[in-house]
Amino acid sequence: MEAPTTLRTYQYSQLSPAEMKQVLARPRVDFTSILNTVSPIVENVRLKGDEAVKEYTAKFDRVNLDTVCVRIEDLPDPVLPADVTKAFDVAYDNIRAFHMAQQAQPLEVETMPGVRCRRVSRPINHVGVYVPGGTAVLPSSALMLSVPAAIAGCSTIVLATPPRPDGTVTPEVLYCAKKAGVTHILKAGGAQAVAAMAWGTGSCPKVDKILGPGNQFVTAAKMLLQNSEAMVAIDMPAGPSEVLVIADAGAPHAHVAADLLSQAEHGPDSQVVLVALPGVDLAGVAAEVERQCSALPRNDTARKALGHSYAVQVSSRAEAIAFSNAYAPEHLIVNVEDAEDWLPGLDNAGSVFLGRWTPESVGDYASGTNHVLPTYGYARMYSGVSLDSFQKRMTVQSLTYEGLQLLGPSVAKMAEVEGLDAHRRAVTLRLGMQ
Amino acid sequence: MEAPTTLRTYQYSQLSPAEMKQVLARPRVDFTSILNTVSPIVENVRLKGDEAVKEYTAKFDRVNLDTVCVRIEDLPDPVLPADVTKAFDVAYDNIRAFHMAQQAQPLEVETMPGVRCRRVSRPINHVGVYVPGGTAVLPSSALMLSVPAAIAGCSTIVLATPPRPDGTVTPEVLYCAKKAGVTHILKAGGAQAVAAMAWGTGSCPKVDKILGPGNQFVTAAKMLLQNSEAMVAIDMPAGPSEVLVIADAGAPHAHVAADLLSQAEHGPDSQVVLVALPGVDLAGVAAEVERQCSALPRNDTARKALGHSYAVQVSSRAEAIAFSNAYAPEHLIVNVEDAEDWLPGLDNAGSVFLGRWTPESVGDYASGTNHVLPTYGYARMYSGVSLDSFQKRMTVQSLTYEGLQLLGPSVAKMAEVEGLDAHRRAVTLRLGMQ
Repeated sequence: MEAPTTLRTYQYSQLSPAEMKQVLARPRVDFTSILNTVSPIVENVRLKGDEAVKEYTAKFDRVNLDTVCVRIEDLPDPVLPADVTKAFDVAYDNIRAFHMAQQAQPLEVETMPGVRCRRVSRPINHVGVYVPGGTAVLPSSALMLSVPAAIAGCSTIVLATPPRPDGTVTPEVLYCAKKAGVTHILKAGGAQAVAAMAWGTGSCPKVDKILGPGNQFVTAAKMLLQNSEAMVAIDMPAGPSEVLVIADAGAPHAHVAADLLSQAEHGPDSQVVLVALPGVDLAGVAAEVERQCSALPRNDTARKALGHSYAVQVSSRAEAIAFSNAYAPEHLIVNVEDAEDWLPGLDNAGSVFLGRWTPESVGDYASGTNHVLPTYGYARMYSGVSLDSFQKRMTVQSLTYEGLQLLGPSVAKMAEVEGLDAHRRAVTLRLGMQ
Repeated sequence: MEAPTTLRTYQYSQLSPAEMKQVLARPRVDFTSILNTVSPIVENVRLKGDEAVKEYTAKFDRVNLDTVCVRIEDLPDPVLPADVTKAFDVAYDNIRAFHMAQQAQPLEVETMPGVRCRRVSRPINHVGVYVPGGTAVLPSSALMLSVPAAIAGCSTIVLATPPRPDGTVTPEVLYCAKKAGVTHILKAGGAQAVAAMAWGTGSCPKVDKILGPGNQFVTAAKMLLQNSEAMVAIDMPAGPSEVLVIADAGAPHAHVAADLLSQAEHGPDSQVVLVALPGVDLAGVAAEVERQCSALPRNDTARKALGHSYAVQVSSRAEAIAFSNAYAPEHLIVNVEDAEDWLPGLDNAGSVFLGRWTPESVGDYASGTNHVLPTYGYARMYSGVSLDSFQKRMTVQSLTYEGLQLLGPSVAKMAEVEGLDAHRRAVTLRLGMQ
């Protein structure tokens, strides 16, 4: 059987280390040139505030804004069809349930008698979330970011999103933002929106952390600002979206093809990888991809993404897991008979979709998990957005006199070893030691 | 009573917003010039690996190394006095107990019947930890970083620390590293050590995340590399160490002074802030600071740090808390009678030391909490190092056919709103819908 023309195919066992490295590498993003584009925008917004945001919005979005950032209660409630609000309400409930369950239990340990150590969570007070606009309308991202921010108790939640041609906010995004508890809407996109939240402007509150997906300019602005005097944290570096599908011989071609295409339609730079266990008819999958792709409204986009995507044939579960863990996909679909048994071996993935009835779309929208996930191989060390992303944790210790008597001599000895005499004296003075 | 000469004093209620902003600002760190120094070092290590590390170690540390990075089992066990190992053993036990308690409970929510969402933790496989050397010997940092890394289950733990003049590793650091479970020792410091771990060299494994305190060059290298092709995360940006002490009239002058000095002796750029409640005799505290400072071996360092430190007089608990939360200190000592009652109001601190018997030194060394904490105001949005810092979390969803039947129509509707037809079809095809 010939390899399908739409998906390059590799044999896992025949890849040399150098080839493996190349296969695992993502399409390279040239951040240096993007940073050069973004840097003056960020600087202009710092210096000129709202005026700069208006200029860039006129230039890039072709919208002339009166006000850049508004309090959400000043915007009228959007009117939407009942079946649309109902769908978003279901998503809201599930996302809220899963993120509520992430609230940390109080942590307290008496490490020695009289030495009490605790960890407490506090909201990050001022946060900014970015919801992309442009070619697609993405109210689901508004939910994914605002719901955990509201649960965390952030007092300021600025939602930035590019305005529509008439200067208004996409009604579905506004519906989700209002429902979740957003406090401000920043009608801007791109690097200028990120910079406005990082520095603060006349109308936009300065935030402590910026989260959310975005194009290369948004990501570059976030990366630039996290190293700047703006004093702002970011959720993670983000690259193009990606999926890795592991399929066995029992995975229906139509389902595998639909899952591959649902990633490919995201953007021309999306990456789609199929890991095929023995018995998978790759030509059959490819034919189904071709058939479904032709019928898609966004088939041009999907076809471009498929151009740099590929399949890897493996001979065993161990090989499939080894490849997936090395690739570190944002989304990992495990479409195999015994999916649950695979979980303990899986590592380095943003979110995992187990079994025949779990397409990626359920997590993109409404199962309850977050869809803001690490891409580009960053799943090796970053987690997706969660309730934790909107909180910080403080440790607390409180000693009794007896606790200090017990622990103090060890502390004094360690301070002596490190040559920090004032550290030692803070203990010995309290204990009346020498 | 005259204001003390060693501590500038402000009245909280008399500060204008502009003055307040200035008081809250840290001594500025000029990262642009430091980045320019560090950038060629990072690039050289990328290109020339171990050879570059050897060159910089010869130049900056005046040590000629044969091997840059070694497996820890190849280093002989250090011989140390029993009272020293005993002190570090106490610290190890407490740090281990507090960080073991941070292990996440399995999280599982059935958001709808047949829609199962989970979150699982996985170690970050390859981590690098930086333990400063130079003027001080800091085995305590080796414990603070290696113990949670080992609990997390990281398979590679590289500990970087500058070698001693004879090319060996400080024995107390090696003792802690061996006890905690470090796998490799990188005998290097500064930007070259950070770069070696980020890129990997012939002898040093490439790591996924770099953690730990360090001077401005170390911090600049970490910041540069987190935005680079090295694909590496960092724990947090770090500035000079700092403490804010809140004292009431009952706080003994000698204790307050010792706590201020134990921060001031860290380095000339350390910042020390005293928030004085009504009835605190500031001149008395200042006299005690002066008396103790003169007796310190590191009194030159401490005196420099005191030069840009200050006191703020407040009239109430609410003012003290408002100032502390706005300052966002790395270390917060609450030396007041009713310390426990203050905790609910406290926010934006790396670690809190509650009550009369809890000097900062106990947390620096041995209470069990971590001493790698956010500085420079970053406590507003960053947490200190914890077990979480060495893990990432994956979400997992698994739907039954019935679960997909229940959730699918909402997902299909949302995909339709967003114009992502392949997302819709991944659901409808499985359900036999149109």
